[in-house]
Amino acid sequence: MKLNIALLAGDGIGPEVIDQAVKVSNAIAKKFNHEIVWTAGITGAAAIDEVGEPYPDSTHEICMAADAVLFGAIGHPRFDNDPKATVRPEQGLLKMRQKLGLFANVRPTFTFPSLIDNSPLKRERIEGTDLIILRELTGGIYFGERGRKDDGNTAFDTCTYTRSEIQRLAKLGFEMAMTRSKKLCCVDKANVLESSRLWRETVQDMEKDYPEVTVSYEFVDAVAMRLVQWPSSYDVLITENLFGDILTDEASVISGSMGLMPSASIGVHTSLFEPIHGSYPQAAGKDIANPLATVLSAAMMFEDAFGLKEEAELIRAVVNKSLAEGIVTEDLAGASKAYKTSEVGDWLAKNI
Amino acid sequence: MKLNIALLAGDGIGPEVIDQAVKVSNAIAKKFNHEIVWTAGITGAAAIDEVGEPYPDSTHEICMAADAVLFGAIGHPRFDNDPKATVRPEQGLLKMRQKLGLFANVRPTFTFPSLIDNSPLKRERIEGTDLIILRELTGGIYFGERGRKDDGNTAFDTCTYTRSEIQRLAKLGFEMAMTRSKKLCCVDKANVLESSRLWRETVQDMEKDYPEVTVSYEFVDAVAMRLVQWPSSYDVLITENLFGDILTDEASVISGSMGLMPSASIGVHTSLFEPIHGSYPQAAGKDIANPLATVLSAAMMFEDAFGLKEEAELIRAVVNKSLAEGIVTEDLAGASKAYKTSEVGDWLAKNI
Ligand SMILES: CC(C)[C@H](C(=O)O)[C@@H](O)C(=O)O
Ligand SMILES: CC(C)[C@H](C(=O)O)[C@@H](O)C(=O)O
Repeated sequence: MKLNIALLAGDGIGPEVIDQAVKVSNAIAKKFNHEIVWTAGITGAAAIDEVGEPYPDSTHEICMAADAVLFGAIGHPRFDNDPKATVRPEQGLLKMRQKLGLFANVRPTFTFPSLIDNSPLKRERIEGTDLIILRELTGGIYFGERGRKDDGNTAFDTCTYTRSEIQRLAKLGFEMAMTRSKKLCCVDKANVLESSRLWRETVQDMEKDYPEVTVSYEFVDAVAMRLVQWPSSYDVLITENLFGDILTDEASVISGSMGLMPSASIGVHTSLFEPIHGSYPQAAGKDIANPLATVLSAAMMFEDAFGLKEEAELIRAVVNKSLAEGIVTEDLAGASKAYKTSEVGDWLAKNI
Repeated sequence: MKLNIALLAGDGIGPEVIDQAVKVSNAIAKKFNHEIVWTAGITGAAAIDEVGEPYPDSTHEICMAADAVLFGAIGHPRFDNDPKATVRPEQGLLKMRQKLGLFANVRPTFTFPSLIDNSPLKRERIEGTDLIILRELTGGIYFGERGRKDDGNTAFDTCTYTRSEIQRLAKLGFEMAMTRSKKLCCVDKANVLESSRLWRETVQDMEKDYPEVTVSYEFVDAVAMRLVQWPSSYDVLITENLFGDILTDEASVISGSMGLMPSASIGVHTSLFEPIHGSYPQAAGKDIANPLATVLSAAMMFEDAFGLKEEAELIRAVVNKSLAEGIVTEDLAGASKAYKTSEVGDWLAKNI
């Protein structure tokens, strides 16, 4: 099979971790007789430096022509404390999501038995956790009208949702729940927000089409609590963009395996796969960052974008083997020998 | 001293826990020679049943005439899954906040050494945690314009902030930081939202007036993570209404002492003190709910509303004694004898 993949390494540790995912993917392609055509594009602070904007048209064309996008991370601290900066790396991320129509961000949180004691939560709280948050990614307050009034002394943002945007996301949630434990939780703030009431109403109307799925409706503040108290009680959660931003990040730290969590963004034009850990500038260029989240994102790509399940399973098996044998970067090494980012990638590729 | 206190018991376990705070407050008044005039008002589902609305004018007048308000909880599950209900208990809460001008919600999170093992977090993560979240309570998306368009198929909510609203809240935050470790964290989403950029800009401008305070700026998603990872690294956090709703609830579960956490809402016309646990309808009427959060809210009231620090300290000391001697409700009793709500209240009053 011929696989056209756009490769966006981005900022910070992005390029280093992406390199390892490329090694692993190439090893997979060789073993299973696929041909991968990688096409690299620039994004983020790197692209601002080069062409003055974080998601240039040339990069967009590369993504549109690809069957899938493998993405590192974007963001650079030099923009963070400057509220007046007019071009920011994150704008590239948002533009990319919008132009590629990446409407659903799929964020699994699960545990690795060998890493469970890294969790800030007690073992008995976290054991058995295996949940997915489906975050709406191209609507809500991220993309509504915003601005200033009164000489800049009043600022406003607008959160808008349409019934069809909600249906599109919720449909994925129901379908995902059908392949899992048939439990779906709709997270909103329907006791305050009109947009949340439309979410709840729309999902309630869809329940009849999925009679086997048990749907619960919970307020975002309650979910923020229960994710810490009893994460294993959740299965599939669906929510709007901003709540999803907060809850997926909160969920990511409970497993103790944040450096290993992959994600997928499902789109109208293509889909995109990326580690959740961000650009981690402090570690950039040091060959110490953990590449496993990116490698596992590549596994999601093989399975979800190309339907190549066996390939994905092999990647996951080799990752588990590296964990079992202690071929890990310093964040996971504890008192044992720490391997370099590139060494972990080489080991994984060799063991495929 | 004469203390005029409005008493709003509200829904669910509200009346039961409020009763104990009244017993304790009366014991304090007797010991220190104060005269308390309690004036009761109806709110929430209880008020909807009685007069058709959750914060009637009669109750508002009682609050306006009082020096402080002691509040139980409101909310009833029969309204939760009905997106079309036109009158809801929570509207009473919002109306009350707005009409009393309760612009700052003060939510401490701290640990009780004897309860630390109830936390879902590991002991070493939570030990030493003593933080305060200051949540803006009368602005933002809670009170902006909202509605439907396109035959009800599009819903919108608006988040608006003015510079002076932000200054008012931030001033409290800076002042609070000055009495503590001089660390202030401004929580926003300035990489996306215009209102957050105004928050960041405004707080940055105020830094020069508090040269001793070290201010950090963090994104709400990052804070949602770090609250679980290293809660003890925070001291005073300031944030807007919706982020505060989510983060204060998240923070409340990390201490393992959720049933003990008090809160204050500081207002233009008066201030209000309430436990954070909500109406907990499953336990209502059973005399099993933990009254300590309400009792500790009364302690905050003596200190913050009336400047009676010694009285507040005595309440806290007696609460600590009840914990040490195991005079606790079933949520804290473990394998030992569980006391009733009313028994705990009686014991506290007697020991004052
Ligand atoms: C960088 C930022 C704009 C982005 C978001 O808020 O969506 C990030 O936090 C994420 O979750 O991918
Ligand atoms: C009941 C609800 C409207 C309220 C809020 O969101 O402010 C509650 O969650 C709170 O935090 O007091």
